[in-house]
Amino acid sequence: MKTVAIVGTGLIGGSIGLALHRAGFTGEIVGVDSSSNETSAALAAGAISRVGAFDDAAAADVIVLAVPVMGILDWMKRLAPLVGPHQLITDVGSTKLAICDSARELFNGPDQAQFLPGHPMAGKESGGAALAEATLFDAAMWLFTPVADETPLTTEWRGWVAKFGARTMDLDAARHDQICAWVSHLPQMVSTAMSAMFEDEFAAQPELAADFRAIGGRALREMTRLGASPYSMWRDVAFTNTKPLAATIFALEQRLAHLRESLKTPELRDEFLKANDFRKLR
Amino acid sequence: MKTVAIVGTGLIGGSIGLALHRAGFTGEIVGVDSSSNETSAALAAGAISRVGAFDDAAAADVIVLAVPVMGILDWMKRLAPLVGPHQLITDVGSTKLAICDSARELFNGPDQAQFLPGHPMAGKESGGAALAEATLFDAAMWLFTPVADETPLTTEWRGWVAKFGARTMDLDAARHDQICAWVSHLPQMVSTAMSAMFEDEFAAQPELAADFRAIGGRALREMTRLGASPYSMWRDVAFTNTKPLAATIFALEQRLAHLRESLKTPELRDEFLKANDFRKLR
Repeated sequence: MKTVAIVGTGLIGGSIGLALHRAGFTGEIVGVDSSSNETSAALAAGAISRVGAFDDAAAADVIVLAVPVMGILDWMKRLAPLVGPHQLITDVGSTKLAICDSARELFNGPDQAQFLPGHPMAGKESGGAALAEATLFDAAMWLFTPVADETPLTTEWRGWVAKFGARTMDLDAARHDQICAWVSHLPQMVSTAMSAMFEDEFAAQPELAADFRAIGGRALREMTRLGASPYSMWRDVAFTNTKPLAATIFALEQRLAHLRESLKTPELRDEFLKANDFRKLR
Repeated sequence: MKTVAIVGTGLIGGSIGLALHRAGFTGEIVGVDSSSNETSAALAAGAISRVGAFDDAAAADVIVLAVPVMGILDWMKRLAPLVGPHQLITDVGSTKLAICDSARELFNGPDQAQFLPGHPMAGKESGGAALAEATLFDAAMWLFTPVADETPLTTEWRGWVAKFGARTMDLDAARHDQICAWVSHLPQMVSTAMSAMFEDEFAAQPELAADFRAIGGRALREMTRLGASPYSMWRDVAFTNTKPLAATIFALEQRLAHLRESLKTPELRDEFLKANDFRKLR
């Protein structure tokens, strides 16, 4: 691996560039992004060696797709005819079933480039290369949902990920999407729903806004932090993991209804004790 | 104010003792708690000068009721016949309407002790004197819902609260309970519901537990942190603020249902943009 292309030089892409440098990679890192602001910021942060275009990405030894899921699917189709078996494409998409289906169709054949689907469980509620950090993946979990046998190039990429400080786990794409619906996508949607609801309350009662801000403490800040997350990324998650995500949201709606009906009954105690047990496990 | 009694020497009561010392209070602080473990821990932490009983509490210049709301209501009734106009009782209860109603009935008359209802917006998901901190109220909001005119003793107590580093705000008890239902009680109930739901998923699929723990990141930890909160405290909040709390939970259920039905429609965008707006305000 002498050249790496990072497609999407935002928070995750930029952090991968910085992490590669920190881990000792001395080759070239080409950054490609539809926003010149992002490539400029990535260049200024030292996350990429130079700004490139589509052809530069297609020529790299390893191509990291770090855009939202629908963008990854687009790039896979566009790159497939131009890349070969000496090249590895990997990605950082938040859902894996659609990407794995496409990878099985387009890659990993005898004359085709290799594709290793990946998903670092790291991020921030705000994006952009300006927030990129070389240590973003330190102690984070980096999931892989392989669709083909390992090769020297996939092994090399896994080695870099380990040097980023990430822990790794391989799992089936369907199971990945199911678990991420619970541990990542549901928390996001709850935080978005709470934030949007509060915003509407403010519009209805403007005098409430100041008191809310003054009185709300850590609980409110934490529970709405992810409300700042960008639609552009989560639209694709919702679109490609609709059924598992809808099922988890519906389950929480029912749980909240049960709790609401139990506010003055001993069943509230059962819910608190179960919740206490969950936190002890973690 | 030469002697202070702290009734309930847990996290909040213990922290008030430590904060008083830090702010320069040199009088005696008597700690009263039904648990000798808590009084021992408070004594060991230096939060109280000595352990006392009911009579000791009733004899103090200022009596701080730092137990759950139903306990505060009990103590108010038991103390009322024994205390006089030279004494101040204040509290730290999470809901204020029931406490203010009781205070109007039992205190602030010509021959009665004074009562100043208070509510520091500070805490942790785990309680106990062992976690008490002298700086717990630093920059926190300490709300008051007064039911009578200021007196030299209430002014003195407000002075100590200011020396703790807390900001203060006076508001009507009904408005207090309404706002706290949104900014404090709802976040708690959502975190409890999510934690309890995850715990049940584990019981149904034990092999899931390890993956959940390994894969879940900051979002999951944050959204379930309050799942560790004790039932003993929140039972009383649910019991004394039932209607406002039920209304906020129901509103969130509806919001989640709307979001769930919008996963593949442009309305998801509206929810994310509104949520983004809310976070910009904060």
